[in-house]
Amino acid sequence: MKKLNVTQKLIKNHLVEGSMEPDCEIALKVDHLLQQDATGTLIMLELEKLGLDHVQVEVAVQYVDHNLLQADFKNADDHAFLQSAAQKYGYWYSRPGNGISHVVHMERFGKPGKLMIGSDSHTCSAGSLGMLSMGSGGLDITTAAAGQPYYINMPKVMGVELTGRLPDWLSAKDIILEMLRRYDVKGGVGYIVEYFGEGLKQLSAWDRHVIANMGAELGATTTVFPSDEVTRAFLKQEGREDDWTEIKADEGASYDHYEHIRLDELVPLIAKPGSPDKVVPVSEVAGKPISQVVIGSSANPGLRDFWMVSEIVKGQVVPADVSLDVNPSSRQKIEDLGKLGALNELIKAGARYHQTGCMGCIGMGQAPASNTISLRTMPRNFPGRSGTADDQVYLCSPETAAVSALHGVITDPLDYGKKAAYPKYIEPEQASVNKMMLIEPNESGRDVELKKGPNITSLPDFTPIENTFEAPIILKMGDNISTDEILKAGAEVLPLRSNIEAISQFAYEALHPSFHQAALKARDALGGHLVVAGENYAQGSSREHAAIAPRYLGQKAVIAKSYARIAFQNLVNFGIIPFVFENPENLNHLETNNILVFNDVISSIEQGKTITAYNKATQQGIKLVCPLSKRQRKILLAGGLINYLKNSK
Amino acid sequence: MKKLNVTQKLIKNHLVEGSMEPDCEIALKVDHLLQQDATGTLIMLELEKLGLDHVQVEVAVQYVDHNLLQADFKNADDHAFLQSAAQKYGYWYSRPGNGISHVVHMERFGKPGKLMIGSDSHTCSAGSLGMLSMGSGGLDITTAAAGQPYYINMPKVMGVELTGRLPDWLSAKDIILEMLRRYDVKGGVGYIVEYFGEGLKQLSAWDRHVIANMGAELGATTTVFPSDEVTRAFLKQEGREDDWTEIKADEGASYDHYEHIRLDELVPLIAKPGSPDKVVPVSEVAGKPISQVVIGSSANPGLRDFWMVSEIVKGQVVPADVSLDVNPSSRQKIEDLGKLGALNELIKAGARYHQTGCMGCIGMGQAPASNTISLRTMPRNFPGRSGTADDQVYLCSPETAAVSALHGVITDPLDYGKKAAYPKYIEPEQASVNKMMLIEPNESGRDVELKKGPNITSLPDFTPIENTFEAPIILKMGDNISTDEILKAGAEVLPLRSNIEAISQFAYEALHPSFHQAALKARDALGGHLVVAGENYAQGSSREHAAIAPRYLGQKAVIAKSYARIAFQNLVNFGIIPFVFENPENLNHLETNNILVFNDVISSIEQGKTITAYNKATQQGIKLVCPLSKRQRKILLAGGLINYLKNSK
Repeated sequence: MKKLNVTQKLIKNHLVEGSMEPDCEIALKVDHLLQQDATGTLIMLELEKLGLDHVQVEVAVQYVDHNLLQADFKNADDHAFLQSAAQKYGYWYSRPGNGISHVVHMERFGKPGKLMIGSDSHTCSAGSLGMLSMGSGGLDITTAAAGQPYYINMPKVMGVELTGRLPDWLSAKDIILEMLRRYDVKGGVGYIVEYFGEGLKQLSAWDRHVIANMGAELGATTTVFPSDEVTRAFLKQEGREDDWTEIKADEGASYDHYEHIRLDELVPLIAKPGSPDKVVPVSEVAGKPISQVVIGSSANPGLRDFWMVSEIVKGQVVPADVSLDVNPSSRQKIEDLGKLGALNELIKAGARYHQTGCMGCIGMGQAPASNTISLRTMPRNFPGRSGTADDQVYLCSPETAAVSALHGVITDPLDYGKKAAYPKYIEPEQASVNKMMLIEPNESGRDVELKKGPNITSLPDFTPIENTFEAPIILKMGDNISTDEILKAGAEVLPLRSNIEAISQFAYEALHPSFHQAALKARDALGGHLVVAGENYAQGSSREHAAIAPRYLGQKAVIAKSYARIAFQNLVNFGIIPFVFENPENLNHLETNNILVFNDVISSIEQGKTITAYNKATQQGIKLVCPLSKRQRKILLAGGLINYLKNSK
Repeated sequence: MKKLNVTQKLIKNHLVEGSMEPDCEIALKVDHLLQQDATGTLIMLELEKLGLDHVQVEVAVQYVDHNLLQADFKNADDHAFLQSAAQKYGYWYSRPGNGISHVVHMERFGKPGKLMIGSDSHTCSAGSLGMLSMGSGGLDITTAAAGQPYYINMPKVMGVELTGRLPDWLSAKDIILEMLRRYDVKGGVGYIVEYFGEGLKQLSAWDRHVIANMGAELGATTTVFPSDEVTRAFLKQEGREDDWTEIKADEGASYDHYEHIRLDELVPLIAKPGSPDKVVPVSEVAGKPISQVVIGSSANPGLRDFWMVSEIVKGQVVPADVSLDVNPSSRQKIEDLGKLGALNELIKAGARYHQTGCMGCIGMGQAPASNTISLRTMPRNFPGRSGTADDQVYLCSPETAAVSALHGVITDPLDYGKKAAYPKYIEPEQASVNKMMLIEPNESGRDVELKKGPNITSLPDFTPIENTFEAPIILKMGDNISTDEILKAGAEVLPLRSNIEAISQFAYEALHPSFHQAALKARDALGGHLVVAGENYAQGSSREHAAIAPRYLGQKAVIAKSYARIAFQNLVNFGIIPFVFENPENLNHLETNNILVFNDVISSIEQGKTITAYNKATQQGIKLVCPLSKRQRKILLAGGLINYLKNSK
C-alpha cells in the first residue's frame, strides 16, 4: 500500500470524484463551512436566490467582526441580516464581539480530520489542527451549502521538515516569515504545505495557527499540520478532548517537494512594506523610527502572543511618538488575558485596547499616520490595505513588535535579549470557554424572515458567455496584482459588499482612478471591456467582489500570464473568461485602448481549444488558452455559477 | 456683607472686569483650558496664526479620543499634529486611549475653586468638583490661551435643593433627567445651576459629574457643586488630597431661582428619541424591544456606573437580538474595572468592549441598526447624532440600561428590583493612578515644529462687516435647531475639522441637502446669504464649525428669536451678525428666497441701534436688534475674533 502523508490522507478521506493525480480536478466532501461578515452577506443572498432549505454540511458557522467601523446603520443591519439568515439556513451564528472567525472556529469547532472551506483566504489557519481547510470564493461556499462537493485541482504536497529548537526571542511568526523569504507570495501556488519533523513538538496549536494562517501569503492551497499530542492538549484545554483523533503521515511517506528549516539557525525576521514576502532579518532595518505597533489579528491570535507583549512591556511605557494598539482576537482571549493580569499590564504600559476583530488588518481602523512606519503582527501589508494610501507597514513577531514599541524604533529582540530574560510562557490548564455568544442552528428555518436593511440588495442577473464579441483593453497591469488593488477593503468599501452597484464604483481604483467611467463607456460602446495582467493575477484575499464588480461593469475577460488559485475560480464563477497567454511574451503586444476581437468563443471553451484574439490596433492575432476543467467550462459558459446551479436544479 | 452662594464666590474670585449684576458682561480670569481633538486642531492653527509663544494659563490640556474611527491617515495625523502643538504652546497632552477629556481632567487636574473653559460643551462636567467650568467656542480658548480673560454675561443662579435619599435602582442620571423633564433644553439658558442640600451627601464626585455633565442639555451656562467632604474623599482616592479646599455657600445665601427635588419621590426616568428633554418615567415606555444598549460616555463615566451594569448582568447573558456595547471612559477606569473583575463579568455576559473615548455619543462608532431602538447612558440623542439617520436613541441610567439589556426590551429597574437585590457599590480606597500617558508641557516650545499632515490646512481669511449689503434667505428653520443639524459630527465629517473648505460641504445638510450649492450660488450672485430661525438657535455642542463653515460659504447674518449661549458667541467670533427679532412674530413674515436689504450696518452695530431690514419680496421692513457687548461689537465689526486679536496686537 502506498505510504501517505497527512495531506494525502485528508484528501483520500474526502474524495468523492476524480483521482489523486497531480493537476487532476478532484471533488471533495465538505464538513465545515466558515463565513465572515464581509463575505457572508452575499453568500446568504445567493442561498436566498437558490431557495435553500437547510445547509447540507455538518457544521456551518457565520462569523462577524471583520467589518468593525459602525459609523452608520449598515454594519448593525448586516449583523441583523446575517443572524436571521443563519437561523433560516441552519448556520451557527457567532455574535458581534465574539471574535475573529479563524480564532473562534479553532476554539469551538476545529476538529482533526475534517475538511473545511471558508469565504476568507485565511481559512487555511485551521490546518493547525490537522484539518484540510481552504479559503474559497463565496460561491463555492454557496455550492457546498447546497450539498455539492468542493472542486480543486489535485495539489502537490510540499513537506517542510522542522528540526532543532527555536532560539529565545523567536517564535512561530519567524518560521512562516522564513518560508516567505524562501518562496515569495507565489512560491506555494499549486501546493499544500505540510509541516513535519521533531521541531513540531515545541509548537503549540496556536503557534501552528500562526504558520498555517500565513500559508495563504505563500499562495499555497492550504497548510496542514499533523494531529498529535500537542493538538490533543489544545483540545483538552478547550474542554473538547473527545474531538481529538491522531493523524500522522505514514512512516516513509514522501512529498512532491521537500524543504528543511533548522529552527536554531533562524534569526528574527520582518517583512518590509508592500508585500509579506519582502522578508529580511530585523537587524537589517533596525533603528527605523515607528509611529505605531499593532498586535493581534488572525496571524498572531494566541494568548501567548498577547501575553508575551504584556510581559515585555510590563512596568515600562511606550514612548510618546508610538501608539501601541491591542487588537484582541476573541472574547475568550480577552477573558484569559484578564485572568492572567496581562490586559492591565498592557493598559498600564500605554496600550490602546480595541474591540475584538480584524481591525487594521483589513483597513477597519487604526490606519497609520502619513509617511510613518507601522509595525504589525498581522499577516498582510499590501500597499494601502491599512487604510493609509502611502502606508509603510512591516510585519513581524510579537517579540519584535513589543521590543520595538518600547524603543520607538525597529529593534531586534535578540539585542534586547542581551539585557533581559526571555519570558517563559505556561499555557493555562483551562481556557475561558464561554459558548453563550454562539447561537445554535435552527432545526428548520422555513418560517424565519430575513431582516434586510436598506443597503442589502438583490444580486444582479448575469448573461451567458457570447460566442462573438469585441472589447477594448481598458487597463494593463503588472505581476502580483492583489485583490486589494482590484477592489480594496477598508472602511469606505467593505460596508457596500451586499450592494453591487454601489461597490463597483471602486473597482481597480488604486490602479486606475477613473476605471469606473472607462468601463461604463466601454460597456455603452461595445458591451464590455477587457483587462490584461502579468503573473499571479488577483492574489491575496479571497474576495469574490474583485470578480463581481468588474463583471457588473461589463468585464468580459481577463488575459493574464497566470492567476491566483481562488481568483481564477471566482472569475469562472462570475462568468468572466480567465484567458492565459499561450506565449507570456505576448503581454508586450497588448496596450490600453487596443480593441480585441473574439470569435467562436463557445465552442473553443467547450472543446478546450486555443482561441486567437485579433488585435485591431496591431492587426495581429494573440493566442490564448483557457485552462478549465469540464465543470468549470459549463459554469463559465452558463455565465457563472448561479446560472449553472439554477439550470441544473 | 452680602451672603454669597458657591457660584457667586467662584465668579467673584475670578472677576477682572464688569460688575456682578444680572446680564452685565463680565470678564473672568481663566485657570484651566481643556481641548479635545475634534475642536483642538483648529485652536492650535489659530495659535499658530497669532504666533503665540506659550499658553498663558495655569493648566492647559489637549485631550484626544473624541474622534475614534481611524480609517485613514487623518486621525493619526491629527494626533501627531496636536502632540507637536501641545509641545510648542505649553499644553499637557493626553495620549490616544487615555480617555475622554472630562473624565481624565477630573481624575488628574480638576481642583476646587478653579475656573476652566473648554472647547467642548460638556466642559461643565468639572462643576462636580466645585469648579466654575464652562464650554466655549474654540476662539474663546484661543483668546484665553493668549492671556485674555473670558467674557460672559453675568448669569443668574438657579439653586436646586436636593433632599431625602435616592431609592435603590435609581442613580444620579435620574436626577438630571428629572431636571430636564422640568426645564427642557432651554430651561437653563442664562443660568448657572447650583446644587445644594442634605441630599448631596450621598452623591459621590462621579455622581455629581453625571449631573453637571448633562447640565449642558438644560442650556445652562454651567453647573456648580460645593466642594465638601465628598470632594475631599474623591481627591484623596486620586492621590491629590492636597488639592482640596472647602467651598460652600454662605449661610443664608440666596438664589435667583429656587428649585427643589425630593430624591425619594423620583422614579426611573428615560429621555425619548430626538431630544434629552423628552423625559418620561421608564414605566411609560417599558416593553419596547431594543437592539442595542451602550454604557459609558462622559455622562455616566464613573467606575460605579460600569460596575453596576457588570453586577446586574453577572452570570447572565444578553439576548441574541441585543448588542451590549461598553464604552470605557478612561484608561484608569479600565484598570480599575480589571481589578474589580467587572470587565470580565461584562465580557462573559456578552458585552462588546470598545476603545476608550466618546464613541457613539458623537457618532464615532456603534451606530444602531435601521429602525431599531438604542438605549444609551450617553448625554444626547439629537436626531441622527448616533450616525444612523432614522435612529431612535433613548437616554437612561446604567441601572435601566443593564436590566433592559438583559430583557431585550426597555425595562423599569424597579420591576427588576422586586426579585433582585440592589448591588451595593463600595468605592475602592485608591484609584489606579497612572500619569504616564500624560506628556508634560514644555518650558519653551519655540523650536518645536508643528507636524502637519496633508489634511491640516491653514484658516481662510475673513473680511470685516460691510456697511450695506443685500442677501437672500436660503433656509428658514424652527425652534431648537442643534449644532448637529447645522454641521453634523460623525465619522464622515469630524475628520475634516481642520479643513474648512472640505467640511463646509456638509453645512445644514440635515435641514437642506443642497444647502451647499444654494449658498455658493448666493455667494456668486450677491456676495452671501442669510438664514432665519426660531428660539434657541444652535443649541447643543459647542462646535464653532457650525459658524465657520456657514461663514466660509458667505453667511452674513442669522436672524433668530433667540440663540444658545455658546453659539451666539461663535457667530460673533466668526463675523456672522446674530440678529434678534424685535418682534419674534416677524419670523412669520420671512420666507426662503426673500432678499433682505441692510443699510447703515456698521454705525447701527457700533451704537447698538435697531436695524430695519427691508424685505424686497414683501416690501416691508423688519426691525432687528443685535444684543452685543461693547467688546463683541468690536469683534463682530472686525469680521471676527482672529481679525480683532490681530488688530489689537
